[in-house]
Amino acid sequence: MNNNFEDIAFNRRSIKVFDENVKISHEEMLEMITKATKAPSSVNMQPWRFVVVDSEKGKDTLRPLVRFNTRQNDTSAAMVVIFGDMQCYEKGEQIYSQAVQEGIMPESVKTELLGLFMPFYKNAPKQKMNDIVKIDSSLAAMQFMLVARSHGYDTNPIGGFEEDKIAAALGLDAERYVPIMIVAIGKANYESHGSVRLDAKEVTQFI
Amino acid sequence: MNNNFEDIAFNRRSIKVFDENVKISHEEMLEMITKATKAPSSVNMQPWRFVVVDSEKGKDTLRPLVRFNTRQNDTSAAMVVIFGDMQCYEKGEQIYSQAVQEGIMPESVKTELLGLFMPFYKNAPKQKMNDIVKIDSSLAAMQFMLVARSHGYDTNPIGGFEEDKIAAALGLDAERYVPIMIVAIGKANYESHGSVRLDAKEVTQFI
Repeated sequence: MNNNFEDIAFNRRSIKVFDENVKISHEEMLEMITKATKAPSSVNMQPWRFVVVDSEKGKDTLRPLVRFNTRQNDTSAAMVVIFGDMQCYEKGEQIYSQAVQEGIMPESVKTELLGLFMPFYKNAPKQKMNDIVKIDSSLAAMQFMLVARSHGYDTNPIGGFEEDKIAAALGLDAERYVPIMIVAIGKANYESHGSVRLDAKEVTQFI
Repeated sequence: MNNNFEDIAFNRRSIKVFDENVKISHEEMLEMITKATKAPSSVNMQPWRFVVVDSEKGKDTLRPLVRFNTRQNDTSAAMVVIFGDMQCYEKGEQIYSQAVQEGIMPESVKTELLGLFMPFYKNAPKQKMNDIVKIDSSLAAMQFMLVARSHGYDTNPIGGFEEDKIAAALGLDAERYVPIMIVAIGKANYESHGSVRLDAKEVTQFI
């Protein structure tokens, strides 16, 4: 296990071809998702949902949907398809009750906060919910990519896929679950040359 | 400097009240943004833009726009307002030329890739660009929160603010720059009780 933050975060590279012999157990995948979902989310509603595609059959389903990213599909240990749940508020009561049970939130605060958040989430325009779930799920996606590195794996965040078809193809309600990205995960079978970044001064202003 | 990944990533807590005596130099802020923007982005277009509000005047501008988050505004070292640039492709030529100059991309690949990406980005529907810049900028936002911890700071990601007014208030073209989130940064002046998470099994399926 790598615990070197600088190495994990600043030597991360997007990897397109993986060692096909590397598999990841469901136990380890769940451990990485547990760690990834320590990421924050708006009012702790945790809208992220993970579909881990690691079977031959699953990869066959995904292959026609990933455009020019078939190498990652075919060689990765898994394609982790991250969705945002537009009805994430259905778990609101459960989440806040858990906080009360664990003794980190008084019952009165739970009642007050859910009284504010639930109507907001239930009545939010579709565009607003889309933005919330895309932002929150992306926070977990970034943390997942770093957690993967701490477990010795490499990743490739993939945005190019058939976003209108992927939920239904994976058996999900496409109205409810909006695709965020696919994170291919495995071990690199080559040395990446890295990529460049704009100077921080070019993307920052102080006010 | 903290380099302990587990501590940085899994002991991160959203902090609402900061030590008002803590200031962050522009040099250190730029260093943290440099590190945060090692995050990946779709076709490396790096749509994230940072407005670091750390002056009295800037905080005064922000105060009426942050709803119930005035404590963070008033006590943080800075409110880092992250925007997505809907015209990020204007830096495409520069980014890919830099990759050629640094010797990590042949000129022919640059030409081929920009030939694919630039028309796609220039002609993308507004909704699609909105999704791209929100997802990409959120990846950088997550990495920024972790980098902040490695520098000894705490953060609070804030989604509740006047998103229709904040760009114009900060002197930006509101059509071009869409707000992603505000990250308040400073040093906690209290011990957070943390928050709960759904079990990974509840948000994951294997296919």
